[in-house]
Amino acid sequence: MAEKKPYYLFYVILVGPKNSGNVGAVARAMMNFDVENLYLVNPCELDTVCYARAMHATKILDNAKIFTCFDDAIKNLDYLVATSSIESKTDKRHLRNPLLLEDFSEKIVDVQGKIGLVFGREDYGLFNEEIAACDIMLKIPTSESYPSLNLSHAVTVVLYSMYLRKASIPKRRRPMGSLEKHKLYEFFGQLLDAVDYPPHKKEHTKIMFKRIMGRAMPSKWEFHTLMGVFSKTLGKIKRKETKK
Amino acid sequence: MAEKKPYYLFYVILVGPKNSGNVGAVARAMMNFDVENLYLVNPCELDTVCYARAMHATKILDNAKIFTCFDDAIKNLDYLVATSSIESKTDKRHLRNPLLLEDFSEKIVDVQGKIGLVFGREDYGLFNEEIAACDIMLKIPTSESYPSLNLSHAVTVVLYSMYLRKASIPKRRRPMGSLEKHKLYEFFGQLLDAVDYPPHKKEHTKIMFKRIMGRAMPSKWEFHTLMGVFSKTLGKIKRKETKK
Repeated sequence: MAEKKPYYLFYVILVGPKNSGNVGAVARAMMNFDVENLYLVNPCELDTVCYARAMHATKILDNAKIFTCFDDAIKNLDYLVATSSIESKTDKRHLRNPLLLEDFSEKIVDVQGKIGLVFGREDYGLFNEEIAACDIMLKIPTSESYPSLNLSHAVTVVLYSMYLRKASIPKRRRPMGSLEKHKLYEFFGQLLDAVDYPPHKKEHTKIMFKRIMGRAMPSKWEFHTLMGVFSKTLGKIKRKETKK
Repeated sequence: MAEKKPYYLFYVILVGPKNSGNVGAVARAMMNFDVENLYLVNPCELDTVCYARAMHATKILDNAKIFTCFDDAIKNLDYLVATSSIESKTDKRHLRNPLLLEDFSEKIVDVQGKIGLVFGREDYGLFNEEIAACDIMLKIPTSESYPSLNLSHAVTVVLYSMYLRKASIPKRRRPMGSLEKHKLYEFFGQLLDAVDYPPHKKEHTKIMFKRIMGRAMPSKWEFHTLMGVFSKTLGKIKRKETKK
């Protein structure tokens, strides 16, 4: 039994859902694909319409955690996945540079810990700062003429895709956890500071690094190796500076 | 361009939908995945709720064909795919013996013609005679504890799965068409008659054959070969009978 259990646990996070029927439909889809944890950030009222649409999944609604602040909702999760139908054609491309859903679900079997699947508002999706807080950005392949999925449809497709992979979980390496991840990002930020990176480019570059790591999903071993490199680099820079 | 165009065209057929919001949500999902043709058999009224849920896909609702009889809806389609969340544990197993969605979408690239994706009522699904009329039965992998998907979620998952395959269509063989298929089934029926197959088992066995062929999706060449075998077999039986 313990062997078969996945090392990851999904959390569905709806940010600012406005339509209570959608929230209910999401709960039903979660139960259809064995996902239990629902986090709601500033949601609409979970009214009778919501409960009716949830059908047999009312327990998921009863147990949903409600937050008033996005940062509170995500702080205990190890890995954050943003979803959006909007792809960037501007200079924010690193922010919204997406990974295709199928490529992600193939990789997800390697991840350990609490994985937050973040879905935005029905009308505006996720804000840039919310996307920036996520490790990767996911794109569900859809029609170019009408890419925007209904909220509960988007959740359904993502959960279905993950559910398919669960059946055949290969031998797993130990990927880095939440603390390690933040250390790695922090070190990279320190490195940018240390090399006098142009301040106005810094944020984008940090996000780009986050995205690359997000897609790469480094193992614990790789994390330590990376940190070693950063640490050596930083050490070198600082030593040179004190020599001057 | 012509090279890239798939040889198949999807038709979404909703049988007896009761919830107008679901019908609208299905139309939206269809447009999200570039499917245009909606057939409705004895649907609920397509009211303002339906049109609101369709969002930008109202044209699909406007162009939907409405039928009062299931047989009329399917008669011009080449290949029929039933969906159901119910798997049989009774003697009707041939009827509901399903193919998993992913296995089907991998094969669908080989099919030519008009493909009807048939979805049943929100409460009762498809009746046995409707499932029997279809070439194959599709199963969307879902939780054992709550397998029943919302209607528009089921359509979304099926269309998403098909949409993914369309991107990379391999070299295609020419599968048998509607007429050939019916000839093959008819010949098989004749064969059962010719061998004095127990009458009470005949219907189930015919459906089983239909299912096997449905999963196998024979090419035109395979069809002719099969027909040759049947023809030779039937000829042999009849010659023996006249000799007696």
